[in-house]
Amino acid sequence: MGFKDMDKNKLAAMKCQWDNEYDKFKAMNLNLNMARGKPSPEQLELSMDMLDTLNSNSKLIGLNGDDYRNYGLLDGIPEAKTIFSKMLGVSEDEIIVCGNASLNIMYDIISTSYLKGVCGNTPWHKQEKIKFLCPVPGYDRHFSICETFGIEMINIPTSETGPDMDLIEKLVSEDETIKGIWCVPQYSNPTGYVYSDETVKRFAALKPKASDFRIFWDNAYCIHHLVDSPRILLNIMDECKKNHNDDMVYIFGSTSKITFAGSGVAVLGTSKGNIADLTKVMNMRTIGYDKINQFRHAKYFGSYEGLIKHMNKHKELLVPKFNAVTEALEKEIAPLGIGSWTKPEGGYFISFDSLPGCAKRIVALCKNAGVTLTGAGATYPYGKDPDDRNIRIAPTYPSVDELKKAMEIFCLAVKIASAETIL
Amino acid sequence: MGFKDMDKNKLAAMKCQWDNEYDKFKAMNLNLNMARGKPSPEQLELSMDMLDTLNSNSKLIGLNGDDYRNYGLLDGIPEAKTIFSKMLGVSEDEIIVCGNASLNIMYDIISTSYLKGVCGNTPWHKQEKIKFLCPVPGYDRHFSICETFGIEMINIPTSETGPDMDLIEKLVSEDETIKGIWCVPQYSNPTGYVYSDETVKRFAALKPKASDFRIFWDNAYCIHHLVDSPRILLNIMDECKKNHNDDMVYIFGSTSKITFAGSGVAVLGTSKGNIADLTKVMNMRTIGYDKINQFRHAKYFGSYEGLIKHMNKHKELLVPKFNAVTEALEKEIAPLGIGSWTKPEGGYFISFDSLPGCAKRIVALCKNAGVTLTGAGATYPYGKDPDDRNIRIAPTYPSVDELKKAMEIFCLAVKIASAETIL
Repeated sequence: MGFKDMDKNKLAAMKCQWDNEYDKFKAMNLNLNMARGKPSPEQLELSMDMLDTLNSNSKLIGLNGDDYRNYGLLDGIPEAKTIFSKMLGVSEDEIIVCGNASLNIMYDIISTSYLKGVCGNTPWHKQEKIKFLCPVPGYDRHFSICETFGIEMINIPTSETGPDMDLIEKLVSEDETIKGIWCVPQYSNPTGYVYSDETVKRFAALKPKASDFRIFWDNAYCIHHLVDSPRILLNIMDECKKNHNDDMVYIFGSTSKITFAGSGVAVLGTSKGNIADLTKVMNMRTIGYDKINQFRHAKYFGSYEGLIKHMNKHKELLVPKFNAVTEALEKEIAPLGIGSWTKPEGGYFISFDSLPGCAKRIVALCKNAGVTLTGAGATYPYGKDPDDRNIRIAPTYPSVDELKKAMEIFCLAVKIASAETIL
Repeated sequence: MGFKDMDKNKLAAMKCQWDNEYDKFKAMNLNLNMARGKPSPEQLELSMDMLDTLNSNSKLIGLNGDDYRNYGLLDGIPEAKTIFSKMLGVSEDEIIVCGNASLNIMYDIISTSYLKGVCGNTPWHKQEKIKFLCPVPGYDRHFSICETFGIEMINIPTSETGPDMDLIEKLVSEDETIKGIWCVPQYSNPTGYVYSDETVKRFAALKPKASDFRIFWDNAYCIHHLVDSPRILLNIMDECKKNHNDDMVYIFGSTSKITFAGSGVAVLGTSKGNIADLTKVMNMRTIGYDKINQFRHAKYFGSYEGLIKHMNKHKELLVPKFNAVTEALEKEIAPLGIGSWTKPEGGYFISFDSLPGCAKRIVALCKNAGVTLTGAGATYPYGKDPDDRNIRIAPTYPSVDELKKAMEIFCLAVKIASAETIL
């Protein structure tokens, strides 16, 4: 029987029982973490062989005769371009292979847009106001970059097919101060939604009022599937070209969740025009990225197919974890009707919606019982979830046993917090 | 007999002979490069063993239990801090171990100063004018960063003891728009000068009018000695503290010219206050730097002493190259009195001064005969050498034989260009 139809006295009695259970967990002094999208130690073990790829006997001379141990090749090594251009769905002259973090590329692009402008347009710091559209719930670190630069963020509701395209089309065609939109098109952070073909087509066909409007297409989880026959995301670059919008999209990716988090390779796919524009300032900022690490990755995977094969190993480790979360929710929360959640076919997160006004309380209850979650509100710009209901669950790092324990506490916290709002 | 006292007819005859020799070189279609401070392949070989430091059997858990394969530790791993803090002359809580390029740290600091200001001061983009002092001749990439941000650069003459401190003291105490100065204190780029104790003391005792004035102390060559008993540069951080100027200096270094250029580790030494200020924005830009590469470096060197020992191997490869340059100049140019040059005890460059008005011509003559030099003027802000006389010679990359050949052409070019201005 759901909360809605439950007698208040009965609910109060149940809450009393839940409080007791909760106190028992508190006494255990647990320390479980479902906060960040971190790979687990077992996932990191999968790539240990990569450290054998290069050794003191290796030849570090590349395809075109370049010594990868020395300066040069600002835009990355061709061996890595071959593999990762396929991952991003661009051609080999539409990619830059960068350093260890795609976040860094995003930050630097916005920083450069502020300083120098986008492809000859007025620098953003000389424009009175800059706004970004933010599909919600979304990724906190995207929003933090906007906050750092004082960019006004506008929430865009999302559904299973992606963000509200009617609203986006209207806003970008009318408002010249809107310069960008954050998208995680495949396995959105945190919902796990995959943008529908229609959504991608409508993105590619946007007619923004601002000529320096760009889509920040953070395809961080493009090959991070949890199912054997994953949905195929429509190729945004191809679609943009059909609409003569070649310059409108920046596509981001990295191996942070493929090899080593923080010691991977990050990539940017975008038009040749954008690359020419961006590398002008990039060349002031660095002489080049770590080509040896790029080479290590390229040799380790060998090909795009090798990369995909490697991802299957991650899938096998992750599926039981996602299952542990959804099974607990199905069993404990579904019957009570006090929450809803997504069932992602890939990515790193499950998005949970509590009853309105409960998310902060749930996170606090979990914290007090030793379970760390991403802060409530973090999935919204300025940390402000208008309904205080969205919680991002990151099931990748803990072991399945830890996760089961953590989900017991989570479900208990949901029940207690929900009961509190009703009683 | 020097040019000065030479009969013009005799000089013309000699020039005719030099032109013939030059034409012979031109016919050889040589391709020699003395342009950039690149390590040679032999130097890169010195660090190949580092690639064996970590392999698939390695434990990548650090001193404090952190898994270096995963996210975290924005400010770098303690093992690397221990070694590189000694290199920079700061304590272990006054260092951040970053990515692969110190240039990147410099750019980012200036970018952050523009965007957010320095330690609570007004952001630079909101100040009407920003100026930097630039000891000349200096490093072109420092100047390029200033140009990128539209920072006005003021030339400061230098001598063997360092930049003109009288002028610097006067300017920074009077002009609030002066926010920084670029220094390469040990083995300056390109002169190879080492700042005297007095110079360092006077830097540390500066009383800048701008509270957001900082010394950009690029100690890129601090352990890159060419002699057995190198000059000891006074510790700028210690001196700053004596003057209660703890926050006034950023100290930069990297292993780009110790291990692999572009795949090394870069470090920033500065006060705890500055670190707290800078990491606020750094944390928006990245989740962390490549800790595996930091660990690879730390394990490879083992200690600061190990690092110093490694540098001796570089010295042995580089001394014959610097000698090849200076011997050619002593033999060919000294007797004619048409140039002067520095005799560095470390670093990567030799600074050559021709007769006024000859540098561009010398570089062009060299280029046409297949010898690439750093562009004339590159050692001055805006690429403008007021006397058109300074040329940076980078002897590290070519082999000794190539260098001897290149110097033959260089000396010939100096003679021809000098004769042209006199005749």
